[in-house]
Amino acid sequence: MENTRKPYQLVSLDWKQERTVFSVKGVEIGGDNFNLIAGPCAVETEEQIHTIASYLSKKGVKILRGGAYKPRTSPYSFQGLKEEGLKYLKEAADRNNMAVITEVMDTNLVDKVYEYTDIFQVGTRNMQNFQLLKALSKSDKPVMLKRGWSSTIEEWLLAAEYLLLGGNSNVILCERGIRTFENSTRNTLDLNAVGLVKTLSHLPVFVDPSQATGVRNIVHPMCLAAMAAGADGIMVEVHNQPQEALSDGVQSIYFDQFDKITEDIYSLSSLIGKRPDFAKSVKI
Amino acid sequence: MENTRKPYQLVSLDWKQERTVFSVKGVEIGGDNFNLIAGPCAVETEEQIHTIASYLSKKGVKILRGGAYKPRTSPYSFQGLKEEGLKYLKEAADRNNMAVITEVMDTNLVDKVYEYTDIFQVGTRNMQNFQLLKALSKSDKPVMLKRGWSSTIEEWLLAAEYLLLGGNSNVILCERGIRTFENSTRNTLDLNAVGLVKTLSHLPVFVDPSQATGVRNIVHPMCLAAMAAGADGIMVEVHNQPQEALSDGVQSIYFDQFDKITEDIYSLSSLIGKRPDFAKSVKI
Amino acid sequence: MENTRKPYQLVSLDWKQERTVFSVKGVEIGGDNFNLIAGPCAVETEEQIHTIASYLSKKGVKILRGGAYKPRTSPYSFQGLKEEGLKYLKEAADRNNMAVITEVMDTNLVDKVYEYTDIFQVGTRNMQNFQLLKALSKSDKPVMLKRGWSSTIEEWLLAAEYLLLGGNSNVILCERGIRTFENSTRNTLDLNAVGLVKTLSHLPVFVDPSQATGVRNIVHPMCLAAMAAGADGIMVEVHNQPQEALSDGVQSIYFDQFDKITEDIYSLSSLIGKRPDFAKSVKI
Amino acid sequence: MENTRKPYQLVSLDWKQERTVFSVKGVEIGGDNFNLIAGPCAVETEEQIHTIASYLSKKGVKILRGGAYKPRTSPYSFQGLKEEGLKYLKEAADRNNMAVITEVMDTNLVDKVYEYTDIFQVGTRNMQNFQLLKALSKSDKPVMLKRGWSSTIEEWLLAAEYLLLGGNSNVILCERGIRTFENSTRNTLDLNAVGLVKTLSHLPVFVDPSQATGVRNIVHPMCLAAMAAGADGIMVEVHNQPQEALSDGVQSIYFDQFDKITEDIYSLSSLIGKRPDFAKSVKI
Repeated sequence: MENTRKPYQLVSLDWKQERTVFSVKGVEIGGDNFNLIAGPCAVETEEQIHTIASYLSKKGVKILRGGAYKPRTSPYSFQGLKEEGLKYLKEAADRNNMAVITEVMDTNLVDKVYEYTDIFQVGTRNMQNFQLLKALSKSDKPVMLKRGWSSTIEEWLLAAEYLLLGGNSNVILCERGIRTFENSTRNTLDLNAVGLVKTLSHLPVFVDPSQATGVRNIVHPMCLAAMAAGADGIMVEVHNQPQEALSDGVQSIYFDQFDKITEDIYSLSSLIGKRPDFAKSVKI
Repeated sequence: MENTRKPYQLVSLDWKQERTVFSVKGVEIGGDNFNLIAGPCAVETEEQIHTIASYLSKKGVKILRGGAYKPRTSPYSFQGLKEEGLKYLKEAADRNNMAVITEVMDTNLVDKVYEYTDIFQVGTRNMQNFQLLKALSKSDKPVMLKRGWSSTIEEWLLAAEYLLLGGNSNVILCERGIRTFENSTRNTLDLNAVGLVKTLSHLPVFVDPSQATGVRNIVHPMCLAAMAAGADGIMVEVHNQPQEALSDGVQSIYFDQFDKITEDIYSLSSLIGKRPDFAKSVKI
Repeated sequence: MENTRKPYQLVSLDWKQERTVFSVKGVEIGGDNFNLIAGPCAVETEEQIHTIASYLSKKGVKILRGGAYKPRTSPYSFQGLKEEGLKYLKEAADRNNMAVITEVMDTNLVDKVYEYTDIFQVGTRNMQNFQLLKALSKSDKPVMLKRGWSSTIEEWLLAAEYLLLGGNSNVILCERGIRTFENSTRNTLDLNAVGLVKTLSHLPVFVDPSQATGVRNIVHPMCLAAMAAGADGIMVEVHNQPQEALSDGVQSIYFDQFDKITEDIYSLSSLIGKRPDFAKSVKI
Repeated sequence: MENTRKPYQLVSLDWKQERTVFSVKGVEIGGDNFNLIAGPCAVETEEQIHTIASYLSKKGVKILRGGAYKPRTSPYSFQGLKEEGLKYLKEAADRNNMAVITEVMDTNLVDKVYEYTDIFQVGTRNMQNFQLLKALSKSDKPVMLKRGWSSTIEEWLLAAEYLLLGGNSNVILCERGIRTFENSTRNTLDLNAVGLVKTLSHLPVFVDPSQATGVRNIVHPMCLAAMAAGADGIMVEVHNQPQEALSDGVQSIYFDQFDKITEDIYSLSSLIGKRPDFAKSVKI
């Protein structure tokens, strides 16, 4: 990539040498900050999301994730609680003083999701949904742009360019694994991409080790690896009862696994020169 | 795949043993028919689409393709003529008594595209745009569902299941190449998929050798290979001036290349037991 | 690939415009010829290979395949009959006046395999076994070079360049499927590669649809697709009792399936302008 | 992978719960140890390898890498100094009291390489060279088995099973990147594989970030990420004049980059619970 004229501009470190930092409900993202986003794959019941949010909040987590509109391979799979899910999610976040991130799947849902979320998540299948990107580029709320599971780094940066070009510069890139021939993990986590994008772009880069592995027991080491590779944050699927989750249970971690991850991330942060957005792990 | 319970139902040959056949403006699709869809990648000017449509019509082509809303990797690339392009496309088709197929990129464009097209095309990036699939499942116009460039055959059939489950059973599957490590062609044409889907589903399966190769000079052999593999039709990018095309010029074929393809397809059809939808090539 | 200086030379059509044609035991390979190589995946017993060879010979097949040294993913799988297998294979071929092709896995087996085979096969795992290529480049017997399942077309041609540079110009390239994310077929048959290599190199290009699909029921359409794509021959796994084969049974076809393939290939040949090396199918 | 009977046995943690630890010239490998192997891609001149070995030795590196027989995609590329290279490599190692690791490409080179090396390296192209694996399984020297760039984790473990089954249990697995659609890095480093293999096998797992990235500037973060993911060691390409290297110059790091890597690895080791095999970085 060196010495060649890049096809993107606004997202590039050549264009803006200062790394992008912005605030969401008082939480700083980017720069020296390291953010830990957590929550269930899908909002399933009011009780479930409150239980999880309450737990995570006590561990110091500031941003709550949870899907209300779920993109599912099969039409026979649980499709999410939709607006009801958005409502439960926001209530759980508000009660615990957390910010919300949730996926928006379609242009005609942008306004509705806007009412409930603090950060729009664009899922891996929608990285090149250009109409959606154009719509979100006009929003005043930040966007987390997940990498398409078969998108090159260049295509990913060009998708982000759609957002910046339209006027929204509060963008988080999120590596979540790519599709390869290897099938003992759900996807192949591409940490090279994290390392490389940090040399190409000023945007913060997060990692989602849950989607990237699909295997609960290696989420922990991949969280640490992501941080060591230079990520600015991670997003993890946590569930109070992973074995009964309505979606992605096999990759959702237990509360006690999450405890250990936060402890290790906390320890690693000083070596890496990062400031975690959560307080040192509290015994509950 | 043998002996395992399939995750899809309505699209399956087990569910419906009779192959799906339907008509679009008097053109029969599926069964023993073999359809040849042709046209430019994008509608560029009124004159361009009329020139191409007029030529194709004389060669017997019954279905005209052309993009008006173009999904482009870069925001700086030509994004299509939008509604103006739809208008030119329909006029060119009407004047030559052809049917229209064009891509719909987003739920909020479904109504507009409906006015101009006879077949909705769902592009490779939108194969798992489930909101779009749900919207199109309620339409009375057929849908061509392109395979996602990194979607498995099972995911493709499940995406089609969304359409049938919602009520639209006039669906064409279209293989258009998958993304692999090979980079001397734009994609890797997966004809195994054509052969396999014909054993799994009653839906017609088309092939787009232009997208699948990205190399003009091998479009011809891949058209024949697709037909020999059992495809029910092909969709080819043809341009009057490929070297000046605003998009995908390197894979668009010249008129004289198209002539030879139609001749060879015509000859091959009787061996394969297919009935081409175009008259034997006419010297212009 | 257009307009760029190619990294290979001797294999290139720029270097030698005349297509390579050579003879093996009176069978012409390359040019307008179309060869049908058939036989079991592995030589299992003396009786098995004689039964199959006798059948194939009656159908007009001139080149018999069969593995004696088998590269197996697991050390616990059947590893082949080794020299005993070579002996049975050659006897079966001799008795039926056929030529032999079999795999050579290692430099220290070149001399032994030379005694029994007419064509050396270099398997997909050995395409970049450069010591083996160098050894075979000094042989006076032809080499079929299978494409590595994850090798680019350029790497494949460079591997062939090792053979020609060392002095052996009787080389057959054989596409046998590449490894991709798709897992409902064993590999993804890359017919783009056949089309493209025919524009880049003077060497004959064969296709192995058995390895490329791993699914018995789609071997037939892929044989036809390969021929239509411009292949100079195909190599098919045939077994008298596929359901009891010691290796690759699910992709080996039955005798009656083979009968239909030869009939259709025969019919297709005149359209494609190819001369099959087998007589028109004989009723046995 | 859970709850299914595994196709391999001897390499499995189910078979042997104690992690494999062994010594090479006094250097302990596996268990709580963390090894840093370094050296040039290829031995180029006597002076080059002595300069590099001397530098690395002063930094505390105990195992020297360097290729003498080089597997090269093109027959026109530098093929290595062969036995002369082995000689220089061993002399440089001896003079600095280091152990040697170098690649063996073929069964007929096993004896020769044995004279000079302490650890045999099996390259990515030879992971499934089963004759070579069988030969090395009879050796009393350890083997580093690089993962095939398109081999699944299961295939990798089965290749190791060949070694253990033949009698050689001193095996190091080395992840070096896999081939995917992403082309802005040379390969895609698969750290999921490291995490997963640590849960499946008792064998030590190393990472080669130079091959895995092909980009000098991200070798450093990928070294740290590998360690954080649970790797037992790393192997890095270091060159005194990367810009003039005869092979793989773009991924070879400068001496000062190496300095920083060793410092950071040293710091990270205590957090991870690993004991580096090199003394804390010495100012030269």
